[in-house]
Amino acid sequence: MRATIMYGAGDVRVENVPDPSIVEPTDAILRVVRACICGSDLWPYHDMTPSDAGQSMGHEAIGVVEAVGRDVRTVKPGQVVIMPFAISDGTCTFCREGLPTACVHGGFVGNGGMNGAQAEALRIPFADGTLYAIDVTESDARLPGLLTLSDVMGTGHHAAVVARVAPGHRVVVVGDGAVGLCGVIAAKRLGAEQVILMGRHEDRIALARAFGATDVVPERGEEGVARVRELTGGHGAHSVLECVGTGEAIKTCVAVVRPGGAIGRVGVPHYPAIPGADTMFFKNAIVGGGPAPVRAYIRELLPEVLEGKIDPGRVFDSIVGLDGVPDGYRAMDERKAIKVLVTP
Amino acid sequence: MRATIMYGAGDVRVENVPDPSIVEPTDAILRVVRACICGSDLWPYHDMTPSDAGQSMGHEAIGVVEAVGRDVRTVKPGQVVIMPFAISDGTCTFCREGLPTACVHGGFVGNGGMNGAQAEALRIPFADGTLYAIDVTESDARLPGLLTLSDVMGTGHHAAVVARVAPGHRVVVVGDGAVGLCGVIAAKRLGAEQVILMGRHEDRIALARAFGATDVVPERGEEGVARVRELTGGHGAHSVLECVGTGEAIKTCVAVVRPGGAIGRVGVPHYPAIPGADTMFFKNAIVGGGPAPVRAYIRELLPEVLEGKIDPGRVFDSIVGLDGVPDGYRAMDERKAIKVLVTP
Repeated sequence: MRATIMYGAGDVRVENVPDPSIVEPTDAILRVVRACICGSDLWPYHDMTPSDAGQSMGHEAIGVVEAVGRDVRTVKPGQVVIMPFAISDGTCTFCREGLPTACVHGGFVGNGGMNGAQAEALRIPFADGTLYAIDVTESDARLPGLLTLSDVMGTGHHAAVVARVAPGHRVVVVGDGAVGLCGVIAAKRLGAEQVILMGRHEDRIALARAFGATDVVPERGEEGVARVRELTGGHGAHSVLECVGTGEAIKTCVAVVRPGGAIGRVGVPHYPAIPGADTMFFKNAIVGGGPAPVRAYIRELLPEVLEGKIDPGRVFDSIVGLDGVPDGYRAMDERKAIKVLVTP
Repeated sequence: MRATIMYGAGDVRVENVPDPSIVEPTDAILRVVRACICGSDLWPYHDMTPSDAGQSMGHEAIGVVEAVGRDVRTVKPGQVVIMPFAISDGTCTFCREGLPTACVHGGFVGNGGMNGAQAEALRIPFADGTLYAIDVTESDARLPGLLTLSDVMGTGHHAAVVARVAPGHRVVVVGDGAVGLCGVIAAKRLGAEQVILMGRHEDRIALARAFGATDVVPERGEEGVARVRELTGGHGAHSVLECVGTGEAIKTCVAVVRPGGAIGRVGVPHYPAIPGADTMFFKNAIVGGGPAPVRAYIRELLPEVLEGKIDPGRVFDSIVGLDGVPDGYRAMDERKAIKVLVTP
């Protein structure tokens, strides 16, 4: 079958690889119906050290279960499922607490010798704990929105939850990528009164406004911080969603959070430490976040996607087949696409 | 009257200064009945640049109101009051939200040209918002415990609240100073199942055990972290209270917090950034804290001190008069006293 492998910065190839097969009795084989390219895939696309073995890519999918191991109890062949980006056994102490991304037997799709989801199929460990069956067909028009529950919509939601968005809050979303845009949706549905998007790409800004952003700040650095202060009555925002992962972005978050406020980080940190130990201290602000426990959020978000109350599928503004994946990376990297949907 | 001035590292003097007087109509004059020396006073005691003007010291007191300005409404002459370390107007948006340490008109006692509380008396701005009247006499035996509500007990409680201590939690308290010891009390009363004190002073450890600590880890650095992991079933602690303020201490907190856990910082940070941006991220742990909004906590903690349910006054193991304050600094600095009570 065919799968996407990255061999170094800018070097993405779609190649023939062995078909996946059941290895453990708790495995399932998933045929991929929809996958996509993640903003986080652009990090190695920029800085990956050349590798002969390569890195299998893709960690978001809607698929159909093709086969299951003998110990799989709830997932059945033929079911359409959401595949969250994190593998989780569903039974450990962290899974039971709603933090499947910290599963003691867990891992992230595409690592540990398994292929990723930008592929025709893949092996899913701990299928019962990892996959989430949904009652739709594989030709349902809502698949793009459902696909976002495997990562970006759940991740934007996580940023908002950790940033303690609540009714009446002033919210800043740092980053206008697909996660930031989903952060806007999340902030709005949690009752934010003001949602300020910090971003500068026209297409993304338009979508952010459609999703409920009340203000847009294209300025960066100190100028951007000053503008947010102005927009928030001088005090900053109750809730700040960090959806980028750079040192400049987290610095901005620290500067715009209000005393007593909270920062939710979901951008994979490409900075060594959280700046402003004293600024954060004297503001009594909190900072949290990490890989979103998206599986734990599906129950809450799924009905709203199915009913069309929220429409995160609109972040996909480009569709490619498997052979088009390298072009998809290029388009996202050049900011010509917000997020690329893949139909293997 | 006499007051304590610090002129540089190790140079604390008790001197004659002008009597305080009402300046603003919202002021009160407080005669100090009990004051004390704070662990945070030891920071300038170590590193203060010599100054001719000096820095007035002391920010914790129980006192009697001697006089009030014409706009003071609730506080009355003759009342015994707790004086929290932060000045707050009681009416701004942050005061109303329970964060008086972020009061838009606020400040910290001992700064802004006013003398501190290691003195016979001091002027209190925004007396109605700042002072908290209590129904005891100035010879009440419970004054030491009540005095801790002006800072250390409220501060230990804040660390525990921010670290989300809840019934059944495993808790680590980093630091065996008076705040750390109050953190043990706070963790216990919020339902912690396990309270691990990281500290190495015999007298403090004994008190921590009396306050409810279940385990003590004297090791520091990696050895200490390994010991905590062992004690917590390998995963670390749900709640970590940072009660020191050094780079080593916060590094330990980041290492011992459990996935999904929280760190409450109350040690004034003497480090530029919160380390482990990626460790914290992949653990999905949160870090918060700052100057404790102790006034907002008095209502909750006061009855338990009055009824003897908690006894934070035991952190005072030395008493001096005003002339003994320089000796008190020395004793705390040399770890010969946990916390020094001052009776002006």
